[in-house]
This record gives sequence, C-alpha cells and structure tokens, in this order.
Amino acid sequence: MTELRQDPTTKQWVIIATERARRPQDFVQQSISLTLPPYKADCPFCPGNEHMTPPEKMAYRSGGPVNGPGWWVRAVPNKFSALIPEGSLIRKEEDGFFRKMDGVGQHEVIIESPQHNLCIPLMEDKQVEEVVLAYRERYLTLREDPRFSLIIIFKNHGPGAGTSLEHPHSQLVATPIVPLSIRYRYEKAMGHYDDAGTCVYCDYIRAGLRVRTRLVMETERFLAFHPFASRAPFETWILPKEHQASFGSITMNDSKEFSRVLKVILLKMYHALNNPGYNYIIHTAPIKDEQEEYYHWHLQILPRLVTPAGFELGTGMFINTALPEETAAFIRDFPV
Amino acid sequence: MTELRQDPTTKQWVIIATERARRPQDFVQQSISLTLPPYKADCPFCPGNEHMTPPEKMAYRSGGPVNGPGWWVRAVPNKFSALIPEGSLIRKEEDGFFRKMDGVGQHEVIIESPQHNLCIPLMEDKQVEEVVLAYRERYLTLREDPRFSLIIIFKNHGPGAGTSLEHPHSQLVATPIVPLSIRYRYEKAMGHYDDAGTCVYCDYIRAGLRVRTRLVMETERFLAFHPFASRAPFETWILPKEHQASFGSITMNDSKEFSRVLKVILLKMYHALNNPGYNYIIHTAPIKDEQEEYYHWHLQILPRLVTPAGFELGTGMFINTALPEETAAFIRDFPV
Repeated sequence: MTELRQDPTTKQWVIIATERARRPQDFVQQSISLTLPPYKADCPFCPGNEHMTPPEKMAYRSGGPVNGPGWWVRAVPNKFSALIPEGSLIRKEEDGFFRKMDGVGQHEVIIESPQHNLCIPLMEDKQVEEVVLAYRERYLTLREDPRFSLIIIFKNHGPGAGTSLEHPHSQLVATPIVPLSIRYRYEKAMGHYDDAGTCVYCDYIRAGLRVRTRLVMETERFLAFHPFASRAPFETWILPKEHQASFGSITMNDSKEFSRVLKVILLKMYHALNNPGYNYIIHTAPIKDEQEEYYHWHLQILPRLVTPAGFELGTGMFINTALPEETAAFIRDFPV
Repeated sequence: MTELRQDPTTKQWVIIATERARRPQDFVQQSISLTLPPYKADCPFCPGNEHMTPPEKMAYRSGGPVNGPGWWVRAVPNKFSALIPEGSLIRKEEDGFFRKMDGVGQHEVIIESPQHNLCIPLMEDKQVEEVVLAYRERYLTLREDPRFSLIIIFKNHGPGAGTSLEHPHSQLVATPIVPLSIRYRYEKAMGHYDDAGTCVYCDYIRAGLRVRTRLVMETERFLAFHPFASRAPFETWILPKEHQASFGSITMNDSKEFSRVLKVILLKMYHALNNPGYNYIIHTAPIKDEQEEYYHWHLQILPRLVTPAGFELGTGMFINTALPEETAAFIRDFPV
C-alpha cells in the first residue's frame, strides 16, 4: 500500500511510495568530490582574485585592503545578477495582455571561505558561525531597502544541484515581489492561524517533540527533523523552537547555535550519504510581515538524490521513495 | 536590465535574466543518445518480454495473444506504481496533527513503440497518432472511475529528465485528489473568468495570434508557442485554438492533428538542440470540471537544458537565461 501524506504547512500532498521504497543506505552516492586544490589561480572567489568579482558589499577581514585578500567571509554582487538594484517597480503592459516590470532587486554571492576546497560540513565551527552571521548581516542591511519585498538566502551544493562554481558559496536574492509559492505558503500559515489561533510551525514543533520518530537533532533552541510529508529522501528542516517569523530576528547567540546544528546535520549527511548534492533555502516572512504571529522562519535542505521528473514538475506533487521515519533514524544514529 | 514577466495563467513571475542571456544556439546539447539497439533481450517493454510487465490494460495489436507480441502501442500498470487502485479515500489523522490517506489511484506506462531505440520525433506520423489515441483512450476509460479526481499524462525523455528506462514510453497517473499546483492554476483561470468573462487561455491564444513573435507553429486547430513568461529556455506550449477544458474532449480527428504538431515540435527540437532531455505534461481540467468555461487543456514541454537550483526549488520562481522571442524564432525557422 502506498500512502499520501499532507504537509500541514502547505497542504500539499506527497506520495510516499512504499511499494518502491528504498532503505536509507540505498541512497549513498558515488562521491561527487574530485580532489580539489585549496587554491585555484583562475577562481574568482579565491584570495588574490578579488578584482574578478564586482566590488564587495561586506567582508569579515583581519586586515588588508577592501577588495584585497585578508578576509574569511566575503559578500559580493553576483557578476551575472538575475536582479539588479535599478529601474522601476511600476508594472507595464505588453500587447494589451501581458504584464512585466524591471528586474529590480539584488543578487549577491556570499563566499564562505577563502579556501577553494572546503565545504560547510568540513569547516571549523567558528567559520560556519561567521557564514551564518554574514547571512544575518546581509539580510539586515538589505531589508532596509524599501524596494525589496523578500530576501531569500540559499545554497546549491554539487553539480546536480545547479552549482557552476566549486568554491564554497551561498547566494542571496532580494526580490521586488513575493514569489507566488512563498505567498501560498504564507497564506496557508495565515489560514491555520485564523482557524486554530496558533502558528502552524509551532504546532508542528510540538507534534514533532511529542512523536520524536522523525527528529534528527535537538538543541536548547533549535530542532532538526525529516518532515512528515518529505518531498524527497532525507529532506531536512531546521527551525527555532520558539516562535520567530523572520530570519532577520535571529540574535547573534542564536546564530551560533543555529550554525552548529546546520553543520552537524550537513556533516552527518556528508559521511552517511557520501557528500550528496543538495540545495538549502531559508524560508522567512516577507519583509513587511516580520513580526507576524503566524509565520516561522526555517531552513529546508533538499538533497538531490533522485531527479524530479514530469509528474513533479507538472503537478508540484512529489513522489518520495523513502520513509522519513527511516531516514531520520539513520541520520540521527549516524556517528560524527 | 533584467526583466520580470508574469505568466497570465498562473500569475507567477519569471525572471528573464537578459544580463546573462544566452543565444538560442548556446543551448545545443552534447548528444545524450547512445547508439541503442532496436531490440534488447532484458528490456521489459520489448516484444516477447510482455510477461515482465503487469498484465496489459490496453494494446493496439494486429493479432497475437493478449500479453504477447504483435502490438504497436501497449498500456500496462507501472510495475512500481506510485498509486494503486485499492484502499480508502477517507483521510486519517496521525498523532493528532498530521493527515494522510491511502495512495488510491492508478499509475500506467504507455509503451509508445515495440522498437527499443525509437523516440517520438523519429517515429512515423501514424505511430505518433496511435500514441496520442492511446492517451485519449486511457483517459476516457479511467475518468469513469469515481475515485479519481485528475488524470495526468506525461513523458520524461533522457536521463536528465528522470527517465530510468530507455524504451520509449509515456506515463499516466490518476490521482484521488487535485494536486495543489494544479488547483492553483485552475483557481487563477476561474478568477480571470470571473473578472473578464473569458477563458484566460483563449485570451492568451488571441494575444499570441496578434503578436506572433513567440509562435512556433500554427495549424487549423492547434497553436504551438514559447510562452511570454517561459520558465526555461525553449519551454513550449501546444493548445487547441478553440476552447476545450479537458483533453478528454478531444476528437479522434483532432488527436491526429495534435499528434502531428507534437511530432514536428519535438523533431525541430531534436535536430536544433541535438536530442535534448525534456519533460512534457498534458494539463487538463479535473474530471468533475471537464465542461467548464474557464479551463483549457494544453501540453507543456519543459526542456532540461539548465538545472533548476535552490532559488527555483524554494520560491517556485524561475530564472530563464533565454528570451522566448529568440528561441521561438530559432525553432520556427529551423527546417525539418
């Protein structure tokens, strides 16, 4: 018997295809990691090549000139920005039927380390802390721009996850509109609040702590679990246990605890699955709604262990061939 | 300047990243086609191996026994079905917070040819007609089952598009619920109808015929174009020019004309882009709404020329590095 499970936060149904279910170990990857050098002369993100990127927006450095070496985390505009901080927010009509507007926004790259061949799970704890603090700082700076509606921080790891550059980096996109699937997610949370008077993510956390079968890690202030309606094998969510709508509200101290959870989860996956490709994204409230009772920021990791095909692309409904209870137990018990 | 364009049918914004735009020729693929044999002894879809699939639901054959050779198109249940026609439609609660139900539905494979190494663009016209007639026949049969809400017909071509078997085949999934992103698409069409009193797809066709820059092919009863807010390079839609909510309403004659358009479009892409991977899906109204004024069935082809990454997965908002006006002209003028 296969099973349909509904994500309580989006109301999206997922097919858990137990008929073709695979065991957690079946997802171990052929390693995608070539042996990379710690420095590459033609890499635009390696120290000494700062002139190969647009001028930096922010850097953590112990000395050295701006746009020179000496930094350990560095944020620069994406050289091939999808959105740029110019133009008008006014919608225009085309041919009496179509609507368009200028691509107003910001698209940044956060270079996570000077070292070409590192990745988050293999970094020192302190370095991962600094990466998360850079996320926070760029978020807090960009939310002041009244043209932006939402700030999305994400990472692509591995060629199967859409990375074009090896050097460890994350990305940030500030958009002038709230993308529709974020709006839908937000509306569902609002609907739950209107019905139940509670934040659906807070309820999810309470249920997770009661059931515990899908928990992977718990600290004083954070929780990591494989969601009940996981869309893909080893999908993982990390949430603050206390209600907080926006990533922009995270404290410096909580940033450190969050970075530790992120690192441990990625380290477990790195060893358990042999350096899988993945995407992660920080889901957070639109800038104007950062104080709302009904949204709750969280990070979602989507490993790229299977290829979504026509059914998923066309319906938004995912077929998952692993049981989240089994993958969670596998990762929870995996020693690092 | 980059540009945001809104899909009039979904209201989803797409980023047309003209800053990093590539010319249509830049998307030509390294060939993914190995030289395949016309017959493979261990392929479950090759003639003579009918016992390797579940018993057939339908076959077009000139003779020979059921579940034996002699067919030219054959529909069988997927051996690893995501949904099966058993169980209950009643929702169940788990742990007082989560909702689930049995995976009731049907999941079929439509084997498009006895020949292992064919693909739609290289088939005889008559064979493609028969494939589309098989889609139609399976649709009409399955819509009679009151447990099913929606019938989705789709195809994955090439390993990058999630195919696991080489032998040419399509798939059909009958779901017991309307997947959320189909529901959203449907609601937007309903909203347009409430506002404007017209089908948004009919309006789209009228605008397309007026503007013509994104048209790829026009026949008496069908239109193929690259949409204004294309999510990916060479995204293509094929629609009936006259209003028709459900694929289930297509006539035998129109099936033939539709199959000809589908073949020509895929043949142009096959040669122009060197056999690219792609997914296609037939979007059609839920079974209970087949006669509505506001939905309009159509086929969407999504080539897999670039990899959607964290931004797309997290926001549902696509970054397209090609201009649909340029890709449409390239395909329109490509001789086949």
